[in-house]
Amino acid sequence: MDQFERLGQLPLRDDLRGLHPYGAPQLDVPILLNVNENTFGVPADAKEAILAAVAAELEGLNRYPDREFTTLRQELAAYLGHGLNEDNLWAANGSNEVLQQILQAFGGPGRTAMGFPPTYSMYPLLASGTGTGYIAGLRDQDYSLSAASAAEQVSAAAPNIVFLCSPNNPTGTALGLEVVEAVYEAGEASRCIVIVDEAYAEFAHTGTPSALSLLEGRPRLVVSRTMSKAFALAGARLGYLAAAPEVADALRLVRLPYHLSAITQATAVAALRTSTSLLANVEAIKVQRDRIVTELTNLGLTPAPSDSNFVFFGGLENPHAVWEALLAEGVLIRDVGIPGHLRVTAGTEAETTAFLSGLRAILAS
Amino acid sequence: MDQFERLGQLPLRDDLRGLHPYGAPQLDVPILLNVNENTFGVPADAKEAILAAVAAELEGLNRYPDREFTTLRQELAAYLGHGLNEDNLWAANGSNEVLQQILQAFGGPGRTAMGFPPTYSMYPLLASGTGTGYIAGLRDQDYSLSAASAAEQVSAAAPNIVFLCSPNNPTGTALGLEVVEAVYEAGEASRCIVIVDEAYAEFAHTGTPSALSLLEGRPRLVVSRTMSKAFALAGARLGYLAAAPEVADALRLVRLPYHLSAITQATAVAALRTSTSLLANVEAIKVQRDRIVTELTNLGLTPAPSDSNFVFFGGLENPHAVWEALLAEGVLIRDVGIPGHLRVTAGTEAETTAFLSGLRAILAS
Repeated sequence: MDQFERLGQLPLRDDLRGLHPYGAPQLDVPILLNVNENTFGVPADAKEAILAAVAAELEGLNRYPDREFTTLRQELAAYLGHGLNEDNLWAANGSNEVLQQILQAFGGPGRTAMGFPPTYSMYPLLASGTGTGYIAGLRDQDYSLSAASAAEQVSAAAPNIVFLCSPNNPTGTALGLEVVEAVYEAGEASRCIVIVDEAYAEFAHTGTPSALSLLEGRPRLVVSRTMSKAFALAGARLGYLAAAPEVADALRLVRLPYHLSAITQATAVAALRTSTSLLANVEAIKVQRDRIVTELTNLGLTPAPSDSNFVFFGGLENPHAVWEALLAEGVLIRDVGIPGHLRVTAGTEAETTAFLSGLRAILAS
Repeated sequence: MDQFERLGQLPLRDDLRGLHPYGAPQLDVPILLNVNENTFGVPADAKEAILAAVAAELEGLNRYPDREFTTLRQELAAYLGHGLNEDNLWAANGSNEVLQQILQAFGGPGRTAMGFPPTYSMYPLLASGTGTGYIAGLRDQDYSLSAASAAEQVSAAAPNIVFLCSPNNPTGTALGLEVVEAVYEAGEASRCIVIVDEAYAEFAHTGTPSALSLLEGRPRLVVSRTMSKAFALAGARLGYLAAAPEVADALRLVRLPYHLSAITQATAVAALRTSTSLLANVEAIKVQRDRIVTELTNLGLTPAPSDSNFVFFGGLENPHAVWEALLAEGVLIRDVGIPGHLRVTAGTEAETTAFLSGLRAILAS
């Protein structure tokens, strides 16, 4: 009996049977452009600030951390602006945990969450993990989502929770605020919590407004963010959200006590206090992102417009073969399982060059 | 409309309505003996090792952490011994998250978990948060739990999951292994996952065996532990478990991707590598624990036998008034809401003296 058969013998929840763990392959290759990290790394002054902040926590590490992570919420509010204060903020170990807490508070058995695939593939998994039904909405053929279509679908399905990913992962395109407004209004009848997942917001083209500007007067609206992308802190696991204070109060009912370690809190606070330096490479990443879009178009491929730090592109006859050929060249990108398409993270200029020349050679051969 | 009323307006899950967030008061007083922390603090060499380990992680903090936390699982297995290896180990952000993952994998809607109150008060909350029904078993009048009684109750209730807390929180007493064996056997019919929560195991009287010794040949048995107590790392949030490898595989299906930050992993690994030093104060704590039991008995109170770093004691006419009077003296202990009883953590010799003389004065007045 192998390990998989032994797993089958355990009294696993029925809907987990036969599933495989979520996650992109973690492979050790020179150029990693598969999970939309900020490949520039953490700048020296931010590293120093984080280390000093962690050192200051060690003395009291035998004590439980501040369950309310008040300083962190203050710093997050100061970073976001938009007139927000710490009462509007909430955080957890990655935005996945933030979203899971929302599902625990507002979803669960007998309730439903709705997303618009292709979108962040964790949404249905988080729904399943909390016993929440999942409704897959529809996008246009070019993967866009109009206000009218989204609102109509939300009205018809009357979900308890809607996920709007903007910029959308894996397609990369931001939603107009009119989509958020229309979905919020359409969700009035079902008292729907509308989550705008802005994990990649810092990479949007200049002038793209954030749904943070819509929070005032909309108690069912939630904007989630992360420090894993623009802030170059994927390893520190800090996701957060802004919403009405009562949304944070709802999450206090479902969060595990002391869910954020003292060290995580200190790391994130130090990073936010050096945010200018941490975010300094965002513009350079956007330049490479736009370069990828231009060069892929020149290669006859069809990249989607991107407001994020990655590019989703179609026009491939055999995407998995291309993915494998790039991997053989030491460049790992992401096969998101959509026919004809692949997704690549915009890295440094050198990494982007390696990806583009590798791809050019593969397509020519 | 105040914030609580505004919370009521949100589409909260029905079973959360009217609830208040879990958690002991976090008060700033000189002597904190309320949440069973190791009050001796983190020794200098462990602090140095942790800081060096965190420093080494900063370079790659822009990358997602090792999703499999392999080094940490190896170190945890080496610490536990009992022939375990990394395949038997799993960890998360505090043992609450470990237990939540077990409920997500093996509990959920239509399934039940059973505990024996008074016991760790998070069990029913974790059950509720995962849509799992909760069955409250019964203890004897002295809060003990015999093998025969536990097995009979498990046979009758046929739960999907049983929590056995040993040493039990808040009463402090360890279960004999015959209780675990009997419950495991009684749970055969319902294919019950049996969790022995050994958060306080390091404080047990010499010679008290761990349920780790029962794992061989029992694929439904799980032993959970934490670094928050004996290891003096409550602020670092690291809980873990040992079980058959297929239990870890089951948890891989419900864990959030990258749930353990690179810094949490590095902190815990460094702490495990300096465990001799971190655990050096366990014996001193046990001396104070035994001293509390003796002196409270001399005061005419009725402390429960304790294998943990705290003492649960009865015989108080008005426990809340005693709790308040101690707080006024700068000593915070825990009112666990059980008539006639309070719970106190065994701290340093000076802290224990402050608690005992404060209590003596209060009872005399």
